[in-house]
Amino acid sequence: MVDVGVLGATGMVGQRFIELLDKHPEFEIKVLTASPRSEGKRYEEAAKWYLQSKMPESVKDIKVVGTDPSKVGDVDILFSALPADIAAKVEPKFAEKYVVASNASAMRMEPDVPLVIPEVNPDFLDLIEVQQKKRGWDGFIVTNPNCTTIALTLTLKPIHDQYTINRVYVATMQAVSGAGYNGVPSMAIIDNIIPYIGGEEEKIETETLHLLGELEEDKVIPAQFGISASCHRVPVLDGHTEAVFIELEEDFEINDIKRIMDEFQGIPQKLELPSAPEKPIIVREDEDRPQPRMDRDESNGMAVTVGRLRRDAAFENSLRYVLVGHNTIRGAAGASILNAELINEIIF
Amino acid sequence: MVDVGVLGATGMVGQRFIELLDKHPEFEIKVLTASPRSEGKRYEEAAKWYLQSKMPESVKDIKVVGTDPSKVGDVDILFSALPADIAAKVEPKFAEKYVVASNASAMRMEPDVPLVIPEVNPDFLDLIEVQQKKRGWDGFIVTNPNCTTIALTLTLKPIHDQYTINRVYVATMQAVSGAGYNGVPSMAIIDNIIPYIGGEEEKIETETLHLLGELEEDKVIPAQFGISASCHRVPVLDGHTEAVFIELEEDFEINDIKRIMDEFQGIPQKLELPSAPEKPIIVREDEDRPQPRMDRDESNGMAVTVGRLRRDAAFENSLRYVLVGHNTIRGAAGASILNAELINEIIF
Amino acid sequence: MVDVGVLGATGMVGQRFIELLDKHPEFEIKVLTASPRSEGKRYEEAAKWYLQSKMPESVKDIKVVGTDPSKVGDVDILFSALPADIAAKVEPKFAEKYVVASNASAMRMEPDVPLVIPEVNPDFLDLIEVQQKKRGWDGFIVTNPNCTTIALTLTLKPIHDQYTINRVYVATMQAVSGAGYNGVPSMAIIDNIIPYIGGEEEKIETETLHLLGELEEDKVIPAQFGISASCHRVPVLDGHTEAVFIELEEDFEINDIKRIMDEFQGIPQKLELPSAPEKPIIVREDEDRPQPRMDRDESNGMAVTVGRLRRDAAFENSLRYVLVGHNTIRGAAGASILNAELINEIIF
Amino acid sequence: MVDVGVLGATGMVGQRFIELLDKHPEFEIKVLTASPRSEGKRYEEAAKWYLQSKMPESVKDIKVVGTDPSKVGDVDILFSALPADIAAKVEPKFAEKYVVASNASAMRMEPDVPLVIPEVNPDFLDLIEVQQKKRGWDGFIVTNPNCTTIALTLTLKPIHDQYTINRVYVATMQAVSGAGYNGVPSMAIIDNIIPYIGGEEEKIETETLHLLGELEEDKVIPAQFGISASCHRVPVLDGHTEAVFIELEEDFEINDIKRIMDEFQGIPQKLELPSAPEKPIIVREDEDRPQPRMDRDESNGMAVTVGRLRRDAAFENSLRYVLVGHNTIRGAAGASILNAELINEIIF
Repeated sequence: MVDVGVLGATGMVGQRFIELLDKHPEFEIKVLTASPRSEGKRYEEAAKWYLQSKMPESVKDIKVVGTDPSKVGDVDILFSALPADIAAKVEPKFAEKYVVASNASAMRMEPDVPLVIPEVNPDFLDLIEVQQKKRGWDGFIVTNPNCTTIALTLTLKPIHDQYTINRVYVATMQAVSGAGYNGVPSMAIIDNIIPYIGGEEEKIETETLHLLGELEEDKVIPAQFGISASCHRVPVLDGHTEAVFIELEEDFEINDIKRIMDEFQGIPQKLELPSAPEKPIIVREDEDRPQPRMDRDESNGMAVTVGRLRRDAAFENSLRYVLVGHNTIRGAAGASILNAELINEIIF
Repeated sequence: MVDVGVLGATGMVGQRFIELLDKHPEFEIKVLTASPRSEGKRYEEAAKWYLQSKMPESVKDIKVVGTDPSKVGDVDILFSALPADIAAKVEPKFAEKYVVASNASAMRMEPDVPLVIPEVNPDFLDLIEVQQKKRGWDGFIVTNPNCTTIALTLTLKPIHDQYTINRVYVATMQAVSGAGYNGVPSMAIIDNIIPYIGGEEEKIETETLHLLGELEEDKVIPAQFGISASCHRVPVLDGHTEAVFIELEEDFEINDIKRIMDEFQGIPQKLELPSAPEKPIIVREDEDRPQPRMDRDESNGMAVTVGRLRRDAAFENSLRYVLVGHNTIRGAAGASILNAELINEIIF
Repeated sequence: MVDVGVLGATGMVGQRFIELLDKHPEFEIKVLTASPRSEGKRYEEAAKWYLQSKMPESVKDIKVVGTDPSKVGDVDILFSALPADIAAKVEPKFAEKYVVASNASAMRMEPDVPLVIPEVNPDFLDLIEVQQKKRGWDGFIVTNPNCTTIALTLTLKPIHDQYTINRVYVATMQAVSGAGYNGVPSMAIIDNIIPYIGGEEEKIETETLHLLGELEEDKVIPAQFGISASCHRVPVLDGHTEAVFIELEEDFEINDIKRIMDEFQGIPQKLELPSAPEKPIIVREDEDRPQPRMDRDESNGMAVTVGRLRRDAAFENSLRYVLVGHNTIRGAAGASILNAELINEIIF
Repeated sequence: MVDVGVLGATGMVGQRFIELLDKHPEFEIKVLTASPRSEGKRYEEAAKWYLQSKMPESVKDIKVVGTDPSKVGDVDILFSALPADIAAKVEPKFAEKYVVASNASAMRMEPDVPLVIPEVNPDFLDLIEVQQKKRGWDGFIVTNPNCTTIALTLTLKPIHDQYTINRVYVATMQAVSGAGYNGVPSMAIIDNIIPYIGGEEEKIETETLHLLGELEEDKVIPAQFGISASCHRVPVLDGHTEAVFIELEEDFEINDIKRIMDEFQGIPQKLELPSAPEKPIIVREDEDRPQPRMDRDESNGMAVTVGRLRRDAAFENSLRYVLVGHNTIRGAAGASILNAELINEIIF
């Protein structure tokens, strides 16, 4: 078993890490960090549990420590659920000694930090060596993309492999959990939509092209197509929905698109990593799916469900679809864990 | 005063007609029709009132009649809130004698039936003569577009007037009232989104180009750009939200787009029609508006609110925005009434 | 294995039966009935699946038959999810030959039909003999109470066993699933409460006293205390919440009440029936629990969670608490199945 | 015109004060206070407007000052929307010089501070003299009860006047706005109920008896019946719903109860105070009313709607009903304003 810790363990994503790591076949939680006011408390006292599953017995008695490299002791991997501003300050310090699998956005676009979806660009992990050499670290940081980007990029990958994408337009309908437990007041969202999520559109547009780009020597050359996003918060608890419009360079058959999505496999599937969904993309034919409440838990929240795949007759070589992905599992904690499983398999 | 009636007066849109016609300065409700099981009842007994305003005193004692031309007596204009299948059968019969201002989709795309938004294409009313001559009717039918189309087209009109639109992509987040009172079960939509609304995408794609087209002699030549829609139902009571992406042929300044939207006026504003909003489009600069709950009632539900107007750097000559329009006022009953007010002013 | 069928298998409660019976250790679904328009179709074609779990593979290919005793063939138990009016007509016909474990309200108050919660009044099953003799049936009908009643009565039972209850007041906050999939339009319940559920208050008041009554020879003498209910529909998907006020005859210690609830066990626990929760009542100490979304799935939806147990200082010998129970599991399908498991154990 | 100010003007209740005072026939807003970080800003910059009405033009340019008696200048009445802890500290300082009409709970139960609902206990204003004498103030503090208490007490008053109340049980279903804009996270309340609101049950139980008590010389003798509350937060934006069970000493006719509620009038109605609803209690006969979304705005949010008035056959001389009142209008800002209108009429 690999000993692991969770940085920022009391928040929404921190709790998802704990839920997913409980009974994990390879990783065992040894340390949990949180802000100073939780320090020294048993986890059960420090955290109000937000998830519908119960708090795992195994973490209740763990004594929470501060988010400080001197306090986490002898573990191998630290999963980071820290807010971006804190992550920017402390993740590099942790990386001097530890492997940091981070869900925070702070380091994602650093040229020597791998931003990885295991099914999409596992080769970017080669940047670890570059990073360690350049920074003189014994550990390293590997990051996963923003929640909305992960689901989108997973569905673009098989298309990008076989066709030339010219344009992507995406309108998101994002669950409130994406903003953290206290992020969206009920007064703001009952019977309402908020058509703005700070920084989200920029993340989608930048990270997606980065992930679908090429690693050349020690840097990433982003993919070259245009991508435009409009992001909206909706009264849904979990599960981001995205309406996607794509223009390709070449003509295509819609059934081919369905087939390549359905058959899509990545290295996690080949290696049978513990958290890997059997199929990263589930293609549904029902006219009214995917729906966030009905499809977010598909494959334990690790698969993206795609539906309404159809030609877009208004434009040449164009198609449309709708996707749903679980934003705090596949889009956050589960993404970091899958990265760590891959690292554990191929690097450790 | 012009004597009017409402066909299909007990449903959601029928009630909006009644609400908006109560105390109308030009129109006075004289007759209300409904299905056979309501026939003969006082309106107050026949209809369960769904709106937050109270049922107007003036209609409570009106005796509901069947939806049959022989029963509506001596009125001038009939507002139709009928379902499409019934409208297809009975609206032509009413039009033999009456002016029918219809919100139903049945006759919208008939070549001799004006599909009109008064601010956008009032000249299409010239088709009335064509229609009457061709069909031998003393009355006529005039229709308004689908709720989602009206809001979108109002915002496209000033752009279309000054620039060449190449592409429009629109993802809608539509309120449950659009499906009628019983249309969306709460089990289907609480904590959920339904990414499908039957026929809606086709209506948006067809009607918008028709409305922005040209009337040449006796037929409409649709506008020629591409438009692609993806429609979604969200847990919002009233007010459709639309995320719009546009590519123009020419370059533009974003402030010019804001200005032409803000300054946009149509014939209803010039004629000061009773239901005309002072400004058909309200442009907001706040980063998190428009929101359906906060903006749907703008200008008594007759204006469309636009926000997040911004360049789309991913593509040349491109812009994005979000709009909110009240689907059962500007998008339905209010649209038919504004059509009737225009007819009353320029034709009667 | 006992071969079973589900009457009314396509609705909300019918689907819960199927979900709970899938992989059941004692029961195996052999037949599914539905209304004529589903007859002859494979279940997968006949039913739109409403639950978040997936439709079990085992039922997809079962050919749906009409709800008619001549069509269900050779099975032992029929679970009834029929609407009350249909149940009234057909359940007696089925009972001529089959064991009917019914969730319908139609036959509950018939003097010779056992209305049973296995933890509360298993001895009422003695009425089966009375019923068979009186009606000349080879089969019989056993019923479970209304969803709200079951949860309430389970929590009253240990109190009733040790104290004399004088008064019970209960205000319910009931989930929309209780009205069936199409029962509550979203227009009715978003940002709203409906303070009326037809027949519900009467059911609670009648059934609870019946369940806590005594079987004397061949009839039930209801318990004698007063019970008053006020029922409300709230925007919650599953899980009924009930605020309970109780006046006892005797003084009590609040900790004794907690203890007797926590320690409460019935025959299903002693017999370790497959669907029996380890504890029928879960007592929570957190000040803000139980909550329907967080607690409805406790013990696979078969336990009732009680919280905020506190004295009621306004009145002598009085206490208050809040409970949550899953209305379509413990309150419907799960209740019938537990009845059948008990019958299977002690009668068959 | 009387010059007034609002203490704590940027929060939810502060905004309701501004909305209700805009265009008020007697009061004119001259000063707005807020926390230090808003000080010096124009109100439009300091406050994010939460209400569906628009921010009144008249306040946009008012420069916000700190919540400090030295800064509010020459006004007569200060409406307080301060949080309880701040109110406890500063309201007494303001009262040295100003009339403070407070919605805060801090001073409500002080023996010399009138806690008043104008329709219920206007005579408690006699305590003003006691207060001024005892504390040596030129101004004074008058308070209104908690939101839930006001609605409940208004409906109890006509019953209390004619009958002897023995018992009151009340279960509340309270809107999220009652906790302030950021008070209830959407993650906490979508598809959920929270069965706990800190301090609320105690306020209902204490304040109601105080309001229905008698002022004897210089102190209030509370009413003597028992009252027990259970409070729950529900996913509703505005409007508290309460299920009420009452036992009287005497027998009654249910129609008499309806009549005395319907005919109930207080001094605000007799004096025709500007904010007084024509009827404080609206009695509805529909079986499914009152509903918060449909009835909260009754009489501009100043009337309480009562429905489902029925005998409670389980207990002697008992009745039940459900009420809805607007928690931030009649239950907060509107309550303070009505108090001030009464003071302005009879004292100034």
